[in-house]
Amino acid sequence: MLSASRRVFLGLFAASVATGTAPPFVLASGAAPLASWANGDARERIISFVESTVKEGGPSFVPPEDRIAVFDNDGTLWSEKPAYFQLFFALDRIKAMAPDHPEWKDVEPYKSILADDFENLAKLGEHALLEVLMQTHAGMSVDQFQAFVTAWLANAKHPKFQRGYDTLVFQPMLELLSYLRDNGYQTWIVSGGGIEFLRTFAEKTYGIPPQQVVGSSIVTEFQMVDGKPTLVRLPKIDFIDDKAGKPVGINKFIGKRPIFAAGNSDGDLQMLQWTSAGAGPRFGMIVHHTDADREFAYDRESSVGRLDKALDEAPSAGWLVVDIKNDWTQVFPAI
Amino acid sequence: MLSASRRVFLGLFAASVATGTAPPFVLASGAAPLASWANGDARERIISFVESTVKEGGPSFVPPEDRIAVFDNDGTLWSEKPAYFQLFFALDRIKAMAPDHPEWKDVEPYKSILADDFENLAKLGEHALLEVLMQTHAGMSVDQFQAFVTAWLANAKHPKFQRGYDTLVFQPMLELLSYLRDNGYQTWIVSGGGIEFLRTFAEKTYGIPPQQVVGSSIVTEFQMVDGKPTLVRLPKIDFIDDKAGKPVGINKFIGKRPIFAAGNSDGDLQMLQWTSAGAGPRFGMIVHHTDADREFAYDRESSVGRLDKALDEAPSAGWLVVDIKNDWTQVFPAI
Repeated sequence: MLSASRRVFLGLFAASVATGTAPPFVLASGAAPLASWANGDARERIISFVESTVKEGGPSFVPPEDRIAVFDNDGTLWSEKPAYFQLFFALDRIKAMAPDHPEWKDVEPYKSILADDFENLAKLGEHALLEVLMQTHAGMSVDQFQAFVTAWLANAKHPKFQRGYDTLVFQPMLELLSYLRDNGYQTWIVSGGGIEFLRTFAEKTYGIPPQQVVGSSIVTEFQMVDGKPTLVRLPKIDFIDDKAGKPVGINKFIGKRPIFAAGNSDGDLQMLQWTSAGAGPRFGMIVHHTDADREFAYDRESSVGRLDKALDEAPSAGWLVVDIKNDWTQVFPAI
Repeated sequence: MLSASRRVFLGLFAASVATGTAPPFVLASGAAPLASWANGDARERIISFVESTVKEGGPSFVPPEDRIAVFDNDGTLWSEKPAYFQLFFALDRIKAMAPDHPEWKDVEPYKSILADDFENLAKLGEHALLEVLMQTHAGMSVDQFQAFVTAWLANAKHPKFQRGYDTLVFQPMLELLSYLRDNGYQTWIVSGGGIEFLRTFAEKTYGIPPQQVVGSSIVTEFQMVDGKPTLVRLPKIDFIDDKAGKPVGINKFIGKRPIFAAGNSDGDLQMLQWTSAGAGPRFGMIVHHTDADREFAYDRESSVGRLDKALDEAPSAGWLVVDIKNDWTQVFPAI
């Protein structure tokens, strides 16, 4: 259970998180399909695949009900550096809660968080991270949690780009989502991130409704609170939707095998394998972060979004490896 | 965890299960809406509610993305007597597996099952039932399990009605599902039954695709079997989608509160409460089994499908109590 949280934790490093007011990001309505994709192999392969699957009577035709496309979120639909954005939410939340917890200034891991001492925080290990996650994600109703996330997204800014986290989505991927939907595909998120966290912005940002979001979860309990039915979030992990958990999550929530999968790290390897192993036309895609100027460049050595085994397997599996630097003419949407 | 299985077990009684070949049931395409509902209050309330929610500009208008309707399955969409149909599947499966397990003829609970001694089987208690469920539902891939269920549905016949289990669906509820979908509603199953069991027939029988089925589940694991990605079902309960579990399942899978809920037993009470407690127009419905001639008559004293607390709460909550005997002109579809 802790391996996913360790991954999160290893990605944490010193970063100052400024707050401010970001305009709500609005999904651009696409004109030409995949307009921010460079003319070339990547764009052509996507279009060729999609066109072949919607051509009625063609050898690769896929009926609409089977046009299921799954997307990882962190590093695939939005950025994931310098750490998973959900971790920034947790740290900001600790700071917001601190006035009610004067004892925290002397107790780890809160002491380090409040002092922005990320170096020390990183040394405290996995258990400290789990405590922070549970402290900030449990002990409240689902509605309350989503309100916290929504308020945070409206105000927090990314340390490098100084814009709202939900504006750091990849324009070419927004276009890909729209293009797939225009061709009768159902688009799903299958993320290691928290399912309720994702649901606060997935519809507005990606056009993906709550019921098409699969993610990690903590246990939720139905309680009558003051005579009112309430879903309360408990400090206990329910499901980790990462690595081998992704095909499990796909099967649990979707109940059928996707024909299209996009990821960016070894956390997506099994999802890509599961998608590709079905009969009929299949498309696997890996977003390779190669652009240190416009975004970040990382792969095999990265603690967050490590891409190693999946990169090795891509050629024999026939997965498209998208080179951000060369395949995307624009990375983030204009705000 | 065992309360749901106890409920199943208590419903078990002596019944001979014949097998044969049933024609596949095909959902009738509706002409007039709710044609098998008697003219009267029940039918009028449903139509009045639905019409009010789709009237643009009206005070009760609900945008299409929020038109979520949830349906219990056992006793709400299909019959559940003399025992949950999934239990008949399990018992038939034990018989089918028996030739490979000669030792079973001397070991309980198999001995009783193979001898059709349901009286003795009922005495063996909850643990025996759980063993039967795990023996018949785990230790195979998801694909294999679904193939077993599909083959069973194609051949097994209900002991009383002598027709396929998937033909013992309620014609008026099929019409209600269609009517809601025709009005832009998403129809979901939220059942205490097994999610993968339901998915084998939900699309063909109810027009509800796999990704709109919520149910109980056992743990599934991603494994490479002979180099092939495989989802293997393990003998461990993952989630019981019953009673207080239903709002939890709804929140997990759908991520938003339904505006319409239909059930038939106290197992649906919390789902009805959760649905009704939201803001705006809400509709709760209880199918009351009052027709011993055409189906079965039971409520407060029944071990399977016990309807007691929810029946008490219905008037103050404003839930429609459907009286099968008087409100439905036809119970099962013609085959």
